[in-house]
Amino acid sequence: MHAEAAPTAERPRRGAYRRLPVEQRREQLIAVALELFATRPPEEVSLDDVAEAAGASRPLVYRYFAGGKQQLYEAALRSAAQELTRRFVQPATGSPSRRLAQVLDRYFGFVAEHDAGYGALLRGGSVVETERTSAIVDDVRRAAFRHVMRHLGVREPGPRLALLVRSWISVVEASALTWLDEGRRIPREELRDWLVDQFTAMFAVTALHDSQAAQALSAMLALETADGPSSGVAALLLRSAGAADAAPA
Amino acid sequence: MHAEAAPTAERPRRGAYRRLPVEQRREQLIAVALELFATRPPEEVSLDDVAEAAGASRPLVYRYFAGGKQQLYEAALRSAAQELTRRFVQPATGSPSRRLAQVLDRYFGFVAEHDAGYGALLRGGSVVETERTSAIVDDVRRAAFRHVMRHLGVREPGPRLALLVRSWISVVEASALTWLDEGRRIPREELRDWLVDQFTAMFAVTALHDSQAAQALSAMLALETADGPSSGVAALLLRSAGAADAAPA
Repeated sequence: MHAEAAPTAERPRRGAYRRLPVEQRREQLIAVALELFATRPPEEVSLDDVAEAAGASRPLVYRYFAGGKQQLYEAALRSAAQELTRRFVQPATGSPSRRLAQVLDRYFGFVAEHDAGYGALLRGGSVVETERTSAIVDDVRRAAFRHVMRHLGVREPGPRLALLVRSWISVVEASALTWLDEGRRIPREELRDWLVDQFTAMFAVTALHDSQAAQALSAMLALETADGPSSGVAALLLRSAGAADAAPA
Repeated sequence: MHAEAAPTAERPRRGAYRRLPVEQRREQLIAVALELFATRPPEEVSLDDVAEAAGASRPLVYRYFAGGKQQLYEAALRSAAQELTRRFVQPATGSPSRRLAQVLDRYFGFVAEHDAGYGALLRGGSVVETERTSAIVDDVRRAAFRHVMRHLGVREPGPRLALLVRSWISVVEASALTWLDEGRRIPREELRDWLVDQFTAMFAVTALHDSQAAQALSAMLALETADGPSSGVAALLLRSAGAADAAPA
């Protein structure tokens, strides 16, 4: 691999061209790229912009990302996807609706930080979008799916429970995009609580179509505490739905 | 424009190379392309495939679509989008949940017919995806959004009602993709009823966060008939939600 010469005490740093160890430089370039992609669509970010913001030369950026902007974009996306996936990790204890709310808080933190990049990626049609970038996004969705199933204690979701969870994940994405598009007019906390309530309501509907969902719902309900964020309408909806059909008794 | 010579009675058709009037030939090429895109991802459809299936020569296809496969794909997508948008048209009379069910029946008919093409398009990351193709897809979503608002009698949706409808549209897309991915395991009618119920349940949750949604919901409920497809759980959810807060009295 290409290595930059280690900085020496004798040689003073010359402003723009700081020397960094290979891995550190690579991470710095990705971090700088992510910042740029967060404020402008990928089309409007050039490799020169990244070099300048990183205090590096264009050839140096090419030394790390020989594939140019596309490669840098994909590396940045992969790094962001890893970070987002880490935010899904949540202890499987306490009120399920509170757990969901905490994950959503971290999710919307990510959306807020990555703004333009998140929007461009999920809206599609960007020139930097490829089969590889779509696969990275799909991996994030699959991770979200697995985390939800783990909290539900479901190992082998049938098609209806899978449909519910995938659909709800798409609601999270759609609402994050709408939130960004509309200048963040709806407060984040309200959006989070709305999504938690939607999860419960969508679950209640699915429970009436599917016995696996009904069981998972009743198990989830049993863990719910009165002070959970979903104690309002969703609990009410749940009781109605439970009374109607799912009735685990 | 380039015109093919009109067919003459003297000259017998020579199998593969039928002569057609300009507009008819263009439409035929688009129809053939749509059929191919329905069974294979766009990457795997070549201009030669289209020419062969259309009984035309490659140069002839290029005469109509000088931009090659990309231009043909976009023309085919535009044509499919128009067809899909026409399927949204539904008289604003009778049970709202029945109206929704009828539109969804036509929507899933479209999904079933366009299968691979629908999937590739909405999954993203295809090489034929551009800003233009994304704009076409967004136009379809916007048309769906306008139709729903028209049925709700809402001229200026606030951010929360807009969020609800956009989110539900994303649920329709996610469920159509899941349906295709999973080999159509869930019966179409069940999926349709599930989506109608989800609309009502998601609406009920939103009504508790937003007065405009509460009003629209109560107006919608007033038009609901006992034999509508949403007379089961959704009506129950609605009554609970209505009793709790929205209470239009």
